[in-house]
Amino acid sequence: MDIPTFDDVLKAHQRIAPYIHRTPVMTSSYLNGLSGAEIFFKCENLQKVGAFKARGACNAVFGLSEANAARGVATHSSGNHAGALSYAAARRGIEATVVMPRTAPETKKAAVRSYGGKILECEPTQAAREAMLDEVIAETGADLVHPYDDARVIAGQATCALELLQEIDGLDAVVAPVGGGGLVSGTCLTLAQQSPQTRIYAAEPASADDAHRSLRAGEIVLRDGQHSVADGLNTNLKPLTWHFVHNFVEDILLVSEIEILDAMYLTWQRMKIIIEPSSAVPLAAILKYPEQFQGQRVGVIITGGNVELQACPGCPQLAAGNPGAS
Amino acid sequence: MDIPTFDDVLKAHQRIAPYIHRTPVMTSSYLNGLSGAEIFFKCENLQKVGAFKARGACNAVFGLSEANAARGVATHSSGNHAGALSYAAARRGIEATVVMPRTAPETKKAAVRSYGGKILECEPTQAAREAMLDEVIAETGADLVHPYDDARVIAGQATCALELLQEIDGLDAVVAPVGGGGLVSGTCLTLAQQSPQTRIYAAEPASADDAHRSLRAGEIVLRDGQHSVADGLNTNLKPLTWHFVHNFVEDILLVSEIEILDAMYLTWQRMKIIIEPSSAVPLAAILKYPEQFQGQRVGVIITGGNVELQACPGCPQLAAGNPGAS
Repeated sequence: MDIPTFDDVLKAHQRIAPYIHRTPVMTSSYLNGLSGAEIFFKCENLQKVGAFKARGACNAVFGLSEANAARGVATHSSGNHAGALSYAAARRGIEATVVMPRTAPETKKAAVRSYGGKILECEPTQAAREAMLDEVIAETGADLVHPYDDARVIAGQATCALELLQEIDGLDAVVAPVGGGGLVSGTCLTLAQQSPQTRIYAAEPASADDAHRSLRAGEIVLRDGQHSVADGLNTNLKPLTWHFVHNFVEDILLVSEIEILDAMYLTWQRMKIIIEPSSAVPLAAILKYPEQFQGQRVGVIITGGNVELQACPGCPQLAAGNPGAS
Repeated sequence: MDIPTFDDVLKAHQRIAPYIHRTPVMTSSYLNGLSGAEIFFKCENLQKVGAFKARGACNAVFGLSEANAARGVATHSSGNHAGALSYAAARRGIEATVVMPRTAPETKKAAVRSYGGKILECEPTQAAREAMLDEVIAETGADLVHPYDDARVIAGQATCALELLQEIDGLDAVVAPVGGGGLVSGTCLTLAQQSPQTRIYAAEPASADDAHRSLRAGEIVLRDGQHSVADGLNTNLKPLTWHFVHNFVEDILLVSEIEILDAMYLTWQRMKIIIEPSSAVPLAAILKYPEQFQGQRVGVIITGGNVELQACPGCPQLAAGNPGAS
């Protein structure tokens, strides 16, 4: 198993700097009052492609040799990694092929197409994704850039916590959502080296609680058919991300679907930023388990802002006349 | 008529600095591509109370003598100025009474209450507002802080363009929405002094086009019963704001209701920020009249982000369980 090091994180940060935004850290006096904590939101919804996934994808793509890059890259993804890999590939001028579940949000499919990525649709199971991806790799010789079970990707995602630490000191805890575990692993990688006293929590939908079950069981527990509204978090851990979760995560906090949506709309309303459901899971956890966070300085990674606004009946004009929607 | 000067703007900026945010200027490569212009969005949706109105209200409230402040402040407002004046008064520890049309968005009423302001509801006409406000002033001796027909308020709003100029140079044009004209007047005040070569456009809903009609007629044209979805822009110009509009505004660009909503959702989707309909009017105008802006550096003031999310059927949880909504 190829475990990335903190040196890989520093190299990644240099490598990807020309292709990503240094996103702002925002605060909300209202949410501080509500939670009793001082929360620092690292706003990766304002990142290129609208998600932190741009970091890992760029690190993988721009780390390829010329010869390997020429054969393109391929992946499977429930959404944001697909757009991110397509973006990174387009910036390098190479091809990206992405296997997506047919149920993935239309916004995320549109993003892939807008960056010139090629989509192959599959059934919404982990097994179906992986089988179709194997075929693609066998045919094209493309470099597989897994959305999270990849040392290069984890080192890239780790740059997010690195920037947070560069801006905010004295963090008592950091909370990140956990799906496949790439972001959490990167967060562990950075914090273990740079701020070992900071506790790391993962937050997870109760309806997609494979990581929580794994931590309780002491080994990876697979769950298929998870379908939380936090659509980026329905995937399972892999050995590489389990390594970080198992060794560095303090606890995995579960929240309900309604708590996720409440936290999402609360963020929209009070912080005036659009975040996707997956991004709201940490705030939902902080509000649900105040005893863990009150009186503390808490970092939260807002993972992305790609929401299918057309799905909201209040937004009919978007579907009809809005060039961004097609 | 008490016409504010640029020196008043500089004093206002110093006076209000402890009570307002210095808001970021954001860009979107997607919207630049779509418009053919390079657009710099001054994000007052991220301002205290979610709107630029915090600037003018704070300048008025913190400029009062101790004796005058003790009698409190009063105003009428369709929304954001009401919240802003309540906020400013609370920061100074004095009372604020606000006359609001009974049709004002619930979010904006809730904001006033949350800052401790006292609401008196009236019929949604200019005449009804002014009559009820006169009564309040007569009874309490409160200082009237008009939402825009007030030199102190205009000097405060002018600090917004001041910060934009401090950050972005070489602007060919600035576009601001026009309702009563306070923001546009402040924008004129700053630009006429600091960047006279920058063209100033106002953007207005066609369904609330009193300022457009006024500019064409060469005198203030009043329209009552205006009810654009851009609810902050339904008010009429006053002599003080007409002075600035008449002397400094290049043109007033009209957009339809559907164009406003399209631009609003496009901003939500692509910039990942929540803006209210009034804030979308300038972008709608830039997209509708590309010949005025293509190839140019254009400043846009995003005026606020207070949207009634509960009104959206996609957001049932907010009304039910969200503490921010009450």
